[in-house]
Amino acid sequence: MSSSEAENRPADGTQGLHEEGDNEKPQISKKAAKKEAAKQEKLRLRQEASAAAAAEALAEASIEDPLSDNYGDVPLNELQSKAHTGRKWTPVKYLTEALKGEEVLIRGRAQAIRAVSKKMAFVVVRERGYTVQCVLSVSPDKVSPQMVKFATSLSRESYVDVDGVVAVPGETLTGTTQQVEILVRKIYCIDRAVPSLPINIEDAARSEADIEKALQAGEKLVRVNQDTRLNFRVLDLRTPANQSIFRLHDQVETTFRQFLRSDGFVGIHTPKLIAGSSEGGAAVFRLDYKGQPACLAQSPQLHKQMVICGDFARVFEIGPVFRAEDSYTHRHLCEFTGLDVEMEIKEHYSEVMDVVGRLFVSIFDSLNENCHKELETIRKQYPFEPLKYLRETLRLTFEEGIQMLKAAGVEVDPLGDLNTEAERKLGQLVLEKYGTEFYILHRYPLGVRPFYTMPCYDDPSYSNSFDVFIRGEEIISGAQRIHNSDFLSQRAEACGIDVKTISAYIDSFRYGAPPHGGFGVGLERVVMLFCALNNIRKTSLFPRDPLRITP
Amino acid sequence: MSSSEAENRPADGTQGLHEEGDNEKPQISKKAAKKEAAKQEKLRLRQEASAAAAAEALAEASIEDPLSDNYGDVPLNELQSKAHTGRKWTPVKYLTEALKGEEVLIRGRAQAIRAVSKKMAFVVVRERGYTVQCVLSVSPDKVSPQMVKFATSLSRESYVDVDGVVAVPGETLTGTTQQVEILVRKIYCIDRAVPSLPINIEDAARSEADIEKALQAGEKLVRVNQDTRLNFRVLDLRTPANQSIFRLHDQVETTFRQFLRSDGFVGIHTPKLIAGSSEGGAAVFRLDYKGQPACLAQSPQLHKQMVICGDFARVFEIGPVFRAEDSYTHRHLCEFTGLDVEMEIKEHYSEVMDVVGRLFVSIFDSLNENCHKELETIRKQYPFEPLKYLRETLRLTFEEGIQMLKAAGVEVDPLGDLNTEAERKLGQLVLEKYGTEFYILHRYPLGVRPFYTMPCYDDPSYSNSFDVFIRGEEIISGAQRIHNSDFLSQRAEACGIDVKTISAYIDSFRYGAPPHGGFGVGLERVVMLFCALNNIRKTSLFPRDPLRITP
Repeated sequence: MSSSEAENRPADGTQGLHEEGDNEKPQISKKAAKKEAAKQEKLRLRQEASAAAAAEALAEASIEDPLSDNYGDVPLNELQSKAHTGRKWTPVKYLTEALKGEEVLIRGRAQAIRAVSKKMAFVVVRERGYTVQCVLSVSPDKVSPQMVKFATSLSRESYVDVDGVVAVPGETLTGTTQQVEILVRKIYCIDRAVPSLPINIEDAARSEADIEKALQAGEKLVRVNQDTRLNFRVLDLRTPANQSIFRLHDQVETTFRQFLRSDGFVGIHTPKLIAGSSEGGAAVFRLDYKGQPACLAQSPQLHKQMVICGDFARVFEIGPVFRAEDSYTHRHLCEFTGLDVEMEIKEHYSEVMDVVGRLFVSIFDSLNENCHKELETIRKQYPFEPLKYLRETLRLTFEEGIQMLKAAGVEVDPLGDLNTEAERKLGQLVLEKYGTEFYILHRYPLGVRPFYTMPCYDDPSYSNSFDVFIRGEEIISGAQRIHNSDFLSQRAEACGIDVKTISAYIDSFRYGAPPHGGFGVGLERVVMLFCALNNIRKTSLFPRDPLRITP
Repeated sequence: MSSSEAENRPADGTQGLHEEGDNEKPQISKKAAKKEAAKQEKLRLRQEASAAAAAEALAEASIEDPLSDNYGDVPLNELQSKAHTGRKWTPVKYLTEALKGEEVLIRGRAQAIRAVSKKMAFVVVRERGYTVQCVLSVSPDKVSPQMVKFATSLSRESYVDVDGVVAVPGETLTGTTQQVEILVRKIYCIDRAVPSLPINIEDAARSEADIEKALQAGEKLVRVNQDTRLNFRVLDLRTPANQSIFRLHDQVETTFRQFLRSDGFVGIHTPKLIAGSSEGGAAVFRLDYKGQPACLAQSPQLHKQMVICGDFARVFEIGPVFRAEDSYTHRHLCEFTGLDVEMEIKEHYSEVMDVVGRLFVSIFDSLNENCHKELETIRKQYPFEPLKYLRETLRLTFEEGIQMLKAAGVEVDPLGDLNTEAERKLGQLVLEKYGTEFYILHRYPLGVRPFYTMPCYDDPSYSNSFDVFIRGEEIISGAQRIHNSDFLSQRAEACGIDVKTISAYIDSFRYGAPPHGGFGVGLERVVMLFCALNNIRKTSLFPRDPLRITP
């Protein structure tokens, strides 16, 4: 799934999404589909019944209550930008003892609702991962029994406004992030969630360890599987781990941009709709473009090189990359976010590896320094060890890698590619010998690289190319490219590519081309492997794989 | 071409690319196509002939020259990362009088080659927009006549290494950016350009004013038309104006990200491959996704809203947006870069307009502050007045706009949309009255906005929506969205959309949805209008329109 290179390797992986094993197309039986449909219908009926019951309870509740203005469902009309009062909402994360005795207004989700009696109820309100306990206790002129009833009628995940006074309880609160309570004076529902949620947030947020522990204590807790999470992604995204994972994404992207810009690179956007058949190799998505055959770019490879020929010297791009491959593994997607770099080379492709090394050390540093809380949160649900990496990124040649494997009893084709198993094994050996889980393997055999890869000057069986690994899995592919148009044509032909379909690309090198190279990274893979997650679907907002194009 | 709203307006514009007039599909006659093919063939033959002649001259030149190691074409093998010497190249822009007498090594393009005699020649070398004059003057043990001959054999735009001594000439150099010369000691060609270029950089870099001026003096200079530029985009991108235009792009994007991140927004990436038919309305590109009907997202609209329902509160996205519309205007593309924002609203859609106003003032400021040189360079080829904008962005209601137009004698449908002509006129009136070329028009008629737009609380003929204009052209569309799933279904049906095809979207609002709103911007339009350029193809690296999908 590397972004800059057409990947012709066998699809692989050992922790596939589907239990049938990797890269075997899972069969969905008609029976299973029917069963799923019936289940959904049942859920919907149950939701409707609960909604009706809630509405009835609500109508009852507000009868003849002098405090009835202090609670209730806000009519939709009121939410159509009617008000413009300038009221201030206090973010839940700012609710601390310093605000004791003050009246605050908060907005968030009713994460948990608990009726203690007809006179008392608790509502835990969550906003952006922070939670606070709101207390409704009947008292004259302040809280009526009907108000308590209204609060307990709320469905979980409903959006609410709560107005109340900050109080500091005598004991530590274990169920919320904030150590204060809100003594509720007013509570309004902005938008109700359906009463029966398809997945509960606390189930989706539970760690495997907690499930196991409960099981040993004889309790069977709900385990939400990956497919169900994705079917109801909008709910799944609300878990603390997911809130953090996608903030890491943004941090990686931000550091990528900042580092490269300060190193003289310019951010660009190349077209995703391209004529012909992209780079050949990996399967592409084809479409009709106003009567012309076209496809979706399987990487910005061709165009980022053309921009180098257009004298931009050093460029990067962040954008979607499309692969129509039938890969059913834990690490392949049909659409992912590519981080691509292309740059002039003065003498040697090590100049590109220099950028890779410095860039990624800077990305890892920035995650460790700026995302403490996020990493901690992810770790709670998905425990992992911090990534081990060196200040100066280790480089090994492919041949050295082969030798290390050989010495460990693993025989591999010296002119072939490494399979996933060999990559993992080599990752282990490198960790033991050099103490790093991040390293570069370079001088790959030419035969396993795309046609535009520059062969080595001293041995045309090898190439000026490299892969980069995190925790034994490939995240980056890069190389020096062929900048001479005649040689490029010749290599394309030798690789069985119809040169006519890429003539616009090859012609770009006819007007004086600088020697250059670059690399491509999959953003989702970087985050997955930094956090040692077992499935790339966990690090894509709305993953696309051969079986999934919704939601 | 706004990014977040499906645009159903009539395609328009007054400065179309094609002379036949806007939005009429230009006809390419067979005759013209044949003529173009013949022209290309002729060009190719001429190039081959010149290349052969150059090679011959070269072979002759190096015969029996004791200095023959000091010049020549670098064999390809030497450029395959053979060397790793650590030599330092001095960037052309650093060549100043301070380096007088020092030996430097530079790399760049032979922009101009001039033989004064058999004993003397000049080569102007260009690197990233900076140019320096290199002088070859025959002298014993330093420069041979063959070396001069080699230099004059270089084709323009060839990539060269020049080694020489910095000298300060007695007079001002008008032909180069740098005020020093290089007395050449060595000159090597890294990669030769074909001898006859399809377009010359100086022709492509010429301003309309210079062409007119020359014409008045009786000289007819080459004018490179927009289509030819795009056919040979790799050459066209080398002009100083283009080098600057795409650096502005990157600056806009950088400020967009920085501003929003510091305002609590998170950068996201939503899928471009989506099931069904996107938002309806504007034509979409359809494709087959592993046997399922799919299309390319015509904006991140649906998914960015879903991410808000997933509790991310404030998000932005920068990514490609696809429109299959048959719009042949100066301001529509089939693929462009969308800058999208979506955020929770506490009370009123003015909260979204606040962000728009502050964000864009910050973008304009950053362009004016950080891109002096780029703006100056663009202005040389395409003169324009600096954009007039207020510190506090002006807001007018749609009704106020209609009144202003009416008072100026322009009658428009009070519940219809503004056409391009009316938008331009209003832009003029606003400039005269308020002194700004950047303003927000809000409270648009509901009937001209997408189905998911929230109607006004006090009048369902109007909506909580806005457009934003630069120099009388729309660049942003935004609105409060409908967050209630039942109302959303109802509005989709009323707008003739098959609710089944967007059920994943509508269902997202069933689990408690915050009131929210957002907007979308076309990056290419921002740069085009900030610089008052007349065609959006000038601000897209490789534009895609209904007639163009290459290079």
